[in-house]
Amino acid sequence: MSLIVAGTFRVPPENVEPLRPHMRDVTEATRQEDGCIVYSYGEDMGDPGLIRVFEVWRDQACLDAHFKSAHMAHWQTVRAGFGLHDRQLKVYEIAAERAL
Amino acid sequence: MSLIVAGTFRVPPENVEPLRPHMRDVTEATRQEDGCIVYSYGEDMGDPGLIRVFEVWRDQACLDAHFKSAHMAHWQTVRAGFGLHDRQLKVYEIAAERAL
Repeated sequence: MSLIVAGTFRVPPENVEPLRPHMRDVTEATRQEDGCIVYSYGEDMGDPGLIRVFEVWRDQACLDAHFKSAHMAHWQTVRAGFGLHDRQLKVYEIAAERAL
Repeated sequence: MSLIVAGTFRVPPENVEPLRPHMRDVTEATRQEDGCIVYSYGEDMGDPGLIRVFEVWRDQACLDAHFKSAHMAHWQTVRAGFGLHDRQLKVYEIAAERAL
């Protein structure tokens, strides 16, 4: 069953720009992973420093492999150094999907 | 069954800032709707002008009502005037959810 990972984390608003190239790096690497359908970060349009995560994965095994990747280990270290906090992510199991 | 609405649209990057207050308005109004669990817009961290949409709704009836709301009609007019294009949204039916 496909999975969505979605939610938010916060960084100090002044750290959004310094983090941008690191987010691009982990995004580009993750999109190469087997079973990665969507992987994205966005900054909330109404709440500076609130980063919105949205991912779609083919199955749990792919998501498990993602968390063991070298680029995720690197990203976890980088983001901690930029004051990431209040990380709130959910995993949703997708029963069906359609175009809106 | 709960539903996720997620995807993207594009605006010319120079229109992101003028659109920001309008996005805040429609977001604040929509979050007051019955059955709206999450409603959000974010600008992609690696692709200026790419706006990421993420919504969670209690059920289809609530989502149907949302599209008939006055604030959505207003927002659809506003956004067209700012060059919104390439809108690609999906509806996902959620079978289960858990914290990551």
